[in-house]
Amino acid sequence: MIKEGETVQLSDGKNRFFLKVKKGEIFGTHKGNINHDDIIKAGYGGEVKTHKGHTFIVLRPTIHEIIMYGIKRKTQIVYPKDSGYITLNLGITDGMKVLESGVGSGGLTIVMANAVKPTGKIYCYEKEEKYIKNAYENIKLAGLERYVEINHQSLEMPLPENFFDAGFIDVREPWLFMENIKKSLKKGSPIGFILPTTNQVSKTIQALKESNFIDIQIVELLERHYKPVPDRLRPEDRMVAHTGYLIFGRKGW
Amino acid sequence: MIKEGETVQLSDGKNRFFLKVKKGEIFGTHKGNINHDDIIKAGYGGEVKTHKGHTFIVLRPTIHEIIMYGIKRKTQIVYPKDSGYITLNLGITDGMKVLESGVGSGGLTIVMANAVKPTGKIYCYEKEEKYIKNAYENIKLAGLERYVEINHQSLEMPLPENFFDAGFIDVREPWLFMENIKKSLKKGSPIGFILPTTNQVSKTIQALKESNFIDIQIVELLERHYKPVPDRLRPEDRMVAHTGYLIFGRKGW
Amino acid sequence: MIKEGETVQLSDGKNRFFLKVKKGEIFGTHKGNINHDDIIKAGYGGEVKTHKGHTFIVLRPTIHEIIMYGIKRKTQIVYPKDSGYITLNLGITDGMKVLESGVGSGGLTIVMANAVKPTGKIYCYEKEEKYIKNAYENIKLAGLERYVEINHQSLEMPLPENFFDAGFIDVREPWLFMENIKKSLKKGSPIGFILPTTNQVSKTIQALKESNFIDIQIVELLERHYKPVPDRLRPEDRMVAHTGYLIFGRKGW
Amino acid sequence: MIKEGETVQLSDGKNRFFLKVKKGEIFGTHKGNINHDDIIKAGYGGEVKTHKGHTFIVLRPTIHEIIMYGIKRKTQIVYPKDSGYITLNLGITDGMKVLESGVGSGGLTIVMANAVKPTGKIYCYEKEEKYIKNAYENIKLAGLERYVEINHQSLEMPLPENFFDAGFIDVREPWLFMENIKKSLKKGSPIGFILPTTNQVSKTIQALKESNFIDIQIVELLERHYKPVPDRLRPEDRMVAHTGYLIFGRKGW
Repeated sequence: MIKEGETVQLSDGKNRFFLKVKKGEIFGTHKGNINHDDIIKAGYGGEVKTHKGHTFIVLRPTIHEIIMYGIKRKTQIVYPKDSGYITLNLGITDGMKVLESGVGSGGLTIVMANAVKPTGKIYCYEKEEKYIKNAYENIKLAGLERYVEINHQSLEMPLPENFFDAGFIDVREPWLFMENIKKSLKKGSPIGFILPTTNQVSKTIQALKESNFIDIQIVELLERHYKPVPDRLRPEDRMVAHTGYLIFGRKGW
Repeated sequence: MIKEGETVQLSDGKNRFFLKVKKGEIFGTHKGNINHDDIIKAGYGGEVKTHKGHTFIVLRPTIHEIIMYGIKRKTQIVYPKDSGYITLNLGITDGMKVLESGVGSGGLTIVMANAVKPTGKIYCYEKEEKYIKNAYENIKLAGLERYVEINHQSLEMPLPENFFDAGFIDVREPWLFMENIKKSLKKGSPIGFILPTTNQVSKTIQALKESNFIDIQIVELLERHYKPVPDRLRPEDRMVAHTGYLIFGRKGW
Repeated sequence: MIKEGETVQLSDGKNRFFLKVKKGEIFGTHKGNINHDDIIKAGYGGEVKTHKGHTFIVLRPTIHEIIMYGIKRKTQIVYPKDSGYITLNLGITDGMKVLESGVGSGGLTIVMANAVKPTGKIYCYEKEEKYIKNAYENIKLAGLERYVEINHQSLEMPLPENFFDAGFIDVREPWLFMENIKKSLKKGSPIGFILPTTNQVSKTIQALKESNFIDIQIVELLERHYKPVPDRLRPEDRMVAHTGYLIFGRKGW
Repeated sequence: MIKEGETVQLSDGKNRFFLKVKKGEIFGTHKGNINHDDIIKAGYGGEVKTHKGHTFIVLRPTIHEIIMYGIKRKTQIVYPKDSGYITLNLGITDGMKVLESGVGSGGLTIVMANAVKPTGKIYCYEKEEKYIKNAYENIKLAGLERYVEINHQSLEMPLPENFFDAGFIDVREPWLFMENIKKSLKKGSPIGFILPTTNQVSKTIQALKESNFIDIQIVELLERHYKPVPDRLRPEDRMVAHTGYLIFGRKGW
């Protein structure tokens, strides 16, 4: 059921570990060591024991869990509440060629790569070399490296023209590169942005209008969790109040 | 570029139409008729004219647009803000077999079918015959009917056992069917629910706990739009205040 | 119990009317006429009948009801969710002299006048003559005209110096008048603003900093209503998404 | 300007202290001692120095500041976002007799006492003796003890009948006392509740309907703060997601 090379999640209800299984190897935790062969034998939903007798359950990780608990964060990540919405709004699907810049920690890259597989690809442009290695490791953890190409390159540099079916931009000053971004998109292709401040939103909207993008929208999503207690149901005391404003448009004419 | 049978979107900035293109056919709008052949020739991002001279742009529809503007609604639909999050949270991906009940108008079915293609399938169980035909038409519009099987069946009836990799339930009283749902899932598989009232949430959480589901979460997502005016940036005056509470868990042991 | 000149509310569960009672007068409604004397005799919580036999209940109107249902709106009003918070945040209380500009429809004026009575006063500066009469009628309806002075004057003109214990500004470009506003406040006095756009917020914050205001805060309040059905408890479908951003500070040195 | 017995706020931008001034006394801080006489001489907006030379500004505290920074909390308090709205919604004003139970830490009591002065009174019923002393100290800090009567009594015990112009109830199981509460209110009087869980809301609404209360509303208020940086304007990262659901109604017939 579990194939070699697949990423599995081990959970004991408190701790979660993510690993790629490989026959003969051993995975060390603070609760003891686990044989990869035992994981393969147990299968998804099965149990494995460490050499100290501690039990973990083997779970197929969801994209959501990989992003929230599995990847190493070297940057602010795009949260699942946003990345699910972005992917639908950009219409990311099998076979598409998608522009992404920067790659950050690869959280959104993973979601979009999962959506373009098996015949599409995410083309990342990241100017900070220090993020690329980490992002690549995270994408590999999700088993999606085949669908991602990371270029160590800023958006200032020329991009392939009239090439991308969609794009998502997460850089500080996207308005500086708007014409370059536009050229790289096919006509009518959707583009998205995430920006933390209202000042950046104003400048980006302005640039989108000047570059004749159409169908411009600005959205924010608020995620509120509740305590799962049937007879005392209530929201959690605190929540994330802001990740970023999402902007969407389509390349016009 | 556009293949026969593909669904395209025609937009003039105010009106949007969705149609499957077929050589030799004619599409009628209140702005005049359009030859499908012209659409194919124009390609995505191209322009077509009606016989009355009105111009439409040919766009590849995003899943988001198909759900919000394309499908016929005979029920309350699951909105993209929720369906993108659901899909990530359930880890829906290529190759999975997914339980869905009911099918409603097929909005979530489309999102999940797009995520399981090309080798997975959504198995819908819908007790109301009147919804099935409409949902199927909507799913066809999205070009995803190959990845969906709709059964005219209530959740009371036996389901394939130990069969599904994930499930999503949108029925009024899910707690009545919890054991049946549980049996149908593989061990450790994620399951989700959407419910409009807090009373239903309490009962569903109670039933999930009694059936030993784990990792139970309750979430709501609020979507707030802004007016895209650079120098007068502000939220829209009104917003949707509630679609439903989302519940997630995993089949335990 | 009800004194002549008091404003009462008549409610039949569907319609609400607000009127000042005066012996011997008659109040006309589409459900028939009501004698003021009957209202006085019935008292708060009592019933009165129209000459057509329709029953209304006599209620003491809350400030909230007067603002939401009683006053005539010629401008966007400050909603109770905001005006209650503003009043606490500015520390408006008995005896204070409060600057307000503009008066708009008088909704916030009513709340603040109620808070400064019996020995304080709200000094309104309104440049649009057309709003003043309506605002004054609304303030009279609330029975608070004794605690309000409305000046037909823009914030450009000199204000009394070092005079106000607090202030609230609801004009389009408050940054133009910041030094004038500052001079009018006593040292350390709190000041507030309401502004619909983020661009205005940025400019106002900038001006507050340049004029050495301290304790600067920006807040927005979201009000979400629920359907009062015990066994199907859920939020209303739609809500007001935005009224304005609230800004607070204190005059520094 | 500052009278003996008034509560003042000392602020150095980082620390806030609240004290009642009394001639001849000394106030100790970790930054050194301050003579009350110096505070009186400085007046609001003036500066005082500790014997160690540290400067504080003398500010008239707003109700908001007293509640957020001044009072000692022995219970969950009612936050200003809620207490301002409650006070308006209940129409609390000069001269009213208001039922409150329990008193908690006195946060809401302070807001309502400030609103009924100089001729009204808040009548608190608190069954936990341990909270009463602290609440009383807090109310004294706000200088409002003259307008508050605290009774060490549960809502199970008889209340004065047909006596209160309004009421606010913050106890765990208000439905147990609904008939007692109703009897204590004058006809048509507004009543409010704050409750943390949806289950409590359902039960309270049910009891209100059974006791013929009218105009029933359920509301929640969300307060979102922004960082006051003009050229990088954005919401704070986190916020309070829940304090309680507010319920309002009026005594019917």
